[in-house]
Order: sequence, then C-alpha cells, then structure tokens
Amino acid sequence: MSKYFTEANSEEAVIARLENCDDPRFKEVMVSAIRHLHAFVKEVEPTVEEWTQAIQFLTATGQICDNKRQEWILASDTLGISMLVDAINHRKPPGSTESTVLGPFHVEGAQELAMGSDICKDGKGEPCVVVGRVLDPDGDPVKDAILDVWQTNGDGFYDVQQPGLQPDLNLRGKFRTGADGRYWLRTVKPVSYPIPTDGPVGKMLEKMGRHAYRPAHIHFIVSAPGFEPVTTHIFLEGDEYIESDAVFGVKDSLVVPFVQKTAAETPEEETLSGPFWRADFDFGLKQES
Amino acid sequence: MSKYFTEANSEEAVIARLENCDDPRFKEVMVSAIRHLHAFVKEVEPTVEEWTQAIQFLTATGQICDNKRQEWILASDTLGISMLVDAINHRKPPGSTESTVLGPFHVEGAQELAMGSDICKDGKGEPCVVVGRVLDPDGDPVKDAILDVWQTNGDGFYDVQQPGLQPDLNLRGKFRTGADGRYWLRTVKPVSYPIPTDGPVGKMLEKMGRHAYRPAHIHFIVSAPGFEPVTTHIFLEGDEYIESDAVFGVKDSLVVPFVQKTAAETPEEETLSGPFWRADFDFGLKQES
Repeated sequence: MSKYFTEANSEEAVIARLENCDDPRFKEVMVSAIRHLHAFVKEVEPTVEEWTQAIQFLTATGQICDNKRQEWILASDTLGISMLVDAINHRKPPGSTESTVLGPFHVEGAQELAMGSDICKDGKGEPCVVVGRVLDPDGDPVKDAILDVWQTNGDGFYDVQQPGLQPDLNLRGKFRTGADGRYWLRTVKPVSYPIPTDGPVGKMLEKMGRHAYRPAHIHFIVSAPGFEPVTTHIFLEGDEYIESDAVFGVKDSLVVPFVQKTAAETPEEETLSGPFWRADFDFGLKQES
Repeated sequence: MSKYFTEANSEEAVIARLENCDDPRFKEVMVSAIRHLHAFVKEVEPTVEEWTQAIQFLTATGQICDNKRQEWILASDTLGISMLVDAINHRKPPGSTESTVLGPFHVEGAQELAMGSDICKDGKGEPCVVVGRVLDPDGDPVKDAILDVWQTNGDGFYDVQQPGLQPDLNLRGKFRTGADGRYWLRTVKPVSYPIPTDGPVGKMLEKMGRHAYRPAHIHFIVSAPGFEPVTTHIFLEGDEYIESDAVFGVKDSLVVPFVQKTAAETPEEETLSGPFWRADFDFGLKQES
C-alpha cells in the first residue's frame, strides 16, 4: 500500500489512523462507518456538486434542530434507522408485546387517573374506549402495571405542538392495573397525521416520492415492577397509511381493530352517550433479566 | 416479505418506498445510502445510548457551522471522504499534476502580481522562493497560465483566520506565465498547523487517537485557456506530518524538497538577503475535454 491516501486504498488509509484509539468499541463502530462511507462513495461516485449538496443537507438538518425539534431523529426515523435500532435492542420472546418508536412527543409527568377516565379534554374527535389486560409470560395478570398513554387530539396534533391551543396534558394519562391486570380508558379514535415536512427531511421525502403520514395510533409505555418496560403503539386497523407509515413503526402484532359499538356495550357497564369506538388489546410484559 | 418493516427486511422495506421517485440519479444514491446505513447498523448493533450519541454528534456538527466555519466539510475531510470525492472526479493522465483538497481558506480576488513578487506582507517566517513551469501534456510551456497561490503565515494561520491581525490578502497572490511557461514567487517556508479542534470533529479525532495537523504546504489553483484547472498543494518534503495529514491530502507526486540556498542562487539572478529556501515544481495541465 502507498504510504499516502489513494482512491484504491482509501478505506485502509483512514482506518490505519485508528491505531492509537484506546476505546475498542468506538474503534469498531468507526471502522464499520468508514468502510461503509467509502464503499457508498465508490458505488455512487458523486460529482463535486452532489457532494456539496450532501454537505448542505447534513448542515441544514442540524441547524433546524432546537429544544422542540429534532430533525436528525426525524431523518433516522424516515430512513428506518430508528426502528432498526429499536428492533435490535428489543428482540422479544413470543407473548411479549413488540416495541416501536418512542417518537418526539412523549412528556414526563402525565397524571395518574382513575381507571376508565377520559384523557380527551378538548372534546374533539370520536369517542373511543381502549380495553385490555397486562399479562406476564405465563398469561397471568400483572398487578401495579402503569400504562403511560398519549396520542394526538382529533385534529391530529399533540398538546405540545399546540401550546395554548389545547388544554394542558390533553390526551395524556397514566393508568394503574389492579390484581386482575385489567385496564380501560376513554379517549378519542386516533387519526393519521403528517410528520413535520417544512425542513430538510420533508424535502428529502418529497424528492423520494414519499408521503409524510403516520397511520393513526395510540402511544403506550407499559411498565411494572420486575418487568422490562415496553414502549409501543397500537395502530388503527384499516388506516389508509397502515402499510406506509412514514417512520416504519407498524408491526403486525400492533395492528388492532377499532370496532364501532353502542352505549350498551361499555366495559364495566358504565354508560357512554352515543356510539363509540372500542379497541381491545392485551399487553405482554417480559420479566427483567 | 412481511408487508411491515422487520429487522430482517429493513433495507428492502425502506427502499420499496422509493417506487414513486422520479429522479433516477437521486434514487440510485438513496438506495445505496440506505443499504450501507442499514448494513452498518446491523454490523455494529448500536445500543439506544450509542444511537443517541450519534444523533447528538450529527446535530452538533451542523449547529457549529456558520459563514466562516464548515464543520461538516471538516468531518468529510478527516474521514477521507473529501479526498475520495476529489480522486473520483479528477482521475489524471500521467504528466498532469494531481489534485488535492481546496480547503476552506481560498479567497476569490487575490491580486495579480509581477513575477517574482513576495506574497508575504508580515515578515514572519523563513524566506522562500518557489520556481517552476506550467506545461502541457507534450511538455511544452503554457502561456497565460494563472497560478492562484495561498498559504498560512509563519505562525500557521491564514489571513482570514486572523482578521485585523494580518495585513489584507497576506500570503495570497496570482502570477501569470509568459511564453516560456515559467513562474517564480517569493513567500515564506510553509509550516504545519492544526485544523480546528474545538468542535465535534476535534472530539472525534481525539477519541480516534489522531492528531489534527496538516503537513506544511502551499495551495495552488493553476488555470489556463483551453486547459482544465487544477486545485492542488505542494507539500514540504520531510515534514513531521507528511505521512499523517489529518485530511489525507498528500500525494507522492506533490511532495517537494525545499532546499536551503544562499543569496547567490536566486532565480533570474535577483538578490535576496540572507539564506532562503527554494522549492522547484512544474505543473502539468490537461487539455479541456
């Protein structure tokens, strides 16, 4: 090998500079990154103008980030990287609920509510109940499981996207199971909505010929003492975007029928006025290892 | 294949979303990028914390960029990507001077100076002359070639890095060849200097166990009517960092002996006071295609 960098030896020339790296894991990651970066450049042979466009995209994606917006996570999400990292880190045994992306809209500190409470505070959207159990790997109920729930309002916006326009902590709440592991809550039927498209990632999606929508879903983090918490969604079966989620979050096991019901069929025989939607979903938790 | 994203089908699931992309070149580039990104993630299996660190690096690298600083170009430079793109775009026939990185310190509008002028205006550093010819592929002299020259001062800083501290356009100038293709100019012996290390790229280099220095060099853009311009450096043979340029810019053919001379040996028999350094280098230009 030439003692200098050449087109032919480019990966090896850069990797050779890691000889004094004293962090074996960092070295492993950088060697793989360097190999793939150089292989990518050799495959596509970018013009100088294309390289300049790439530099501009990388720069702009960082520059639009602030306390409320993380465009690099959006890039990771829309390229399937977030879901891949999630899958690698949460390989689940059968019976455990599969995970999906956390997303940028979780808020710490939602209130614990009485079972059956309505998390919708703005009256927008179609009434809906979600009903089910939290189970251990043997199918036995899990007591004191906390279900941290959040979703958009009927207009497709999270409360934090519309400060001042939605009631505080609208469509957020925590529910705690009893000895029977059962939960139920009132909310509105979730709706599909687009991820932000006014930044570099939106331009990228447009150039790729892709839409920016997520299928309707309700977020959950389910945790309980002695079990691994799971971050997941339930998705509305039949949603227009169910097979083309802009962030690739949908899994077969998380697609749930939302069925239209009458007042007579509420859980625990309470009375809801008018027709409502009902989704049934049991969460399976895996013991902590 | 599952109709949803899985760990196993992740690349294909993302690539399938490009079916409506109407820009074949963009599609080709994105497909390659997606394949390599997913292969990289599958190879290194990042933890969620490592993924978060990567997001932070990507974000910070954009956020430190401004009109005077381009940290993403620095990242590209230090990972050998800039030189690889340069190599791919400037494959040269024998006899043509090889190119290297432009770097961030070129300035348009340097003055055209009389042949033999001194570009050093601050008196720092060791006097040096650079002497040579501009030749076509047949070895014949090229008339009206412009050599646009720039380098750091004797302290290792470009004028634009020290506004107010260095004279305007210090160590910059343009020289035009006559019918004999010859050029010569006075300057100072170049010195090695570090690239900026106070940002994310500096931290990355440190973690990789790498120094941040570039070996001493003088920048040139040589152009002439009917020929392809070449952007290159000449490097000081024997420099401490000649085999470990932080941006991989060195090529065998661009390493030049700088030889210490006495006043009697100046080009064109002018008189320089005291001893000086002399570098001889002929530039070869390739006809425009």
